Amino acid sequence: MFHLLDIIGTIAFAMSGALTAISKKLDPFGVFIIAFVTAVGGGTLRDVMIGRTPVGWMQDLEYVYVIALAFVLSILFRRKFDKLRTSLFLFDTIGLGVFTLIGLEKGINIGLHPIICIALGTMTACFGGVIRDILCNEIPVIFRKEIYATICILGGIVFFMLKKLHLNEDILYLSTSAVIISIRLMAVKYKWYLPVLDRN
Amino acid sequence: MFHLLDIIGTIAFAMSGALTAISKKLDPFGVFIIAFVTAVGGGTLRDVMIGRTPVGWMQDLEYVYVIALAFVLSILFRRKFDKLRTSLFLFDTIGLGVFTLIGLEKGINIGLHPIICIALGTMTACFGGVIRDILCNEIPVIFRKEIYATICILGGIVFFMLKKLHLNEDILYLSTSAVIISIRLMAVKYKWYLPVLDRN
Amino acid sequence: MFHLLDIIGTIAFAMSGALTAISKKLDPFGVFIIAFVTAVGGGTLRDVMIGRTPVGWMQDLEYVYVIALAFVLSILFRRKFDKLRTSLFLFDTIGLGVFTLIGLEKGINIGLHPIICIALGTMTACFGGVIRDILCNEIPVIFRKEIYATICILGGIVFFMLKKLHLNEDILYLSTSAVIISIRLMAVKYKWYLPVLDRN
Repeated sequence: MFHLLDIIGTIAFAMSGALTAISKKLDPFGVFIIAFVTAVGGGTLRDVMIGRTPVGWMQDLEYVYVIALAFVLSILFRRKFDKLRTSLFLFDTIGLGVFTLIGLEKGINIGLHPIICIALGTMTACFGGVIRDILCNEIPVIFRKEIYATICILGGIVFFMLKKLHLNEDILYLSTSAVIISIRLMAVKYKWYLPVLDRN
Repeated sequence: MFHLLDIIGTIAFAMSGALTAISKKLDPFGVFIIAFVTAVGGGTLRDVMIGRTPVGWMQDLEYVYVIALAFVLSILFRRKFDKLRTSLFLFDTIGLGVFTLIGLEKGINIGLHPIICIALGTMTACFGGVIRDILCNEIPVIFRKEIYATICILGGIVFFMLKKLHLNEDILYLSTSAVIISIRLMAVKYKWYLPVLDRN
Repeated sequence: MFHLLDIIGTIAFAMSGALTAISKKLDPFGVFIIAFVTAVGGGTLRDVMIGRTPVGWMQDLEYVYVIALAFVLSILFRRKFDKLRTSLFLFDTIGLGVFTLIGLEKGINIGLHPIICIALGTMTACFGGVIRDILCNEIPVIFRKEIYATICILGGIVFFMLKKLHLNEDILYLSTSAVIISIRLMAVKYKWYLPVLDRN
């Protein structure tokens, strides 16, 4: 179940990367790399920083195949993207929840402090998109528009609060994902933004 | 003493990041990340490249707390920044000296060649700012304007020359910092620049 | 022989970085860093991701000296660059072939899957240029213009096909390099491009 959600999230992230790259008029190689980096960039950065090498996707080819599939789908359906926007948004939100949990887990496994684990969860879920935006020569969208990373941080806090209750691990994971996914859906529906800090 | 200077430098670097991000109209999450990355980015890059993982700030929460403090101070005092410019410049210069020394030391500890140690010192002191500028979609300021990295390189050379004299370690560290800090103050006062290389 | 080609490739990559940086009006420190990063950035990224630390150039000063030489040559000959364009293009193509092979080899040495080895070869040969372009605030040229990375991927596939024939290792390496170098020369001569994917 959790593994299936990971795959769905990976596809959604790869497609978001591919579609950004297509709109920037990159060639197919560029589109593939941006798709790849958007999907695994956050986890790669996390693995490199904690010393978990060779990084994850080098040891599990499933990610490579799934991203290749997402790349092909993006190219085939690139003209119908507007109709798929809602499904993609849902998949992306699932990815946000699952990737945060995977990052939290890696930090816990090597005994890092909860604050650092939350940072790793947020990095896993959000920094693929940051690298995508840098490669496309944009200021990363999560630094200036939507509430996105903030939701991962909240999800991480909820996770450690629930963990104190000694819940069954499945319930712990599912509740945290549910919290992240619900806040994200509400944030977009009700247009929650962080205020820009004015200098004047 | 040295540790106090490290903290002062971290605060100064984080504030320089936060103020750049505020002027780019990022949201508070973006401001925090840019502050964080400016303060610890150089050291993180160094740790990743030498294989010192999990990277430094993941194992010492003090940096996280200090950067959070600098973030709050930057937001509170963002309108008074012009009055604080001189103090911030001094703190930043202290950071330049201390971070260079920390980088040199990590290289020496694992037995790398002095040239590589100087590269690590320069990276520690300067590449947080490079990552800040890339995330803010600018060509890094240290590649085109001020003498900044060059001072770290000079400081590193002085360090290894003094080291041959078998000075007491405290004196070695303090003299190198003093050299870096004095050159930087003079460079700004007398407007020393590296010439741009003209193609014509 | 192979080592000599590695040196020629490093010089070519460093000069391509230096000349890009000069055209962006960076100062000499900026020019040196961009030259350095273009030459060793791909291999550094590879080493960090597979956990081969301290990364290659920290353990073999020869690269540092060769890049310093390329930097000096670029500055001296920067006004004659147009006349040198053909030689530089040839050197760069040699670098493309050699760096791909070095990346493939590192992956094989630690037992990674051929697909991942090909990714490592492509990364080694192409991502120095990607980092150069990001530092110069451009969308990486290999994502939008020339066939370049695609040739490394083809070269990698040829390598593993030839490897099945149990050729002598020297012949295996020379044939793969020859394939990469020939395709690149033809791609430029006959203006082969990947098509841009149109959204409409």
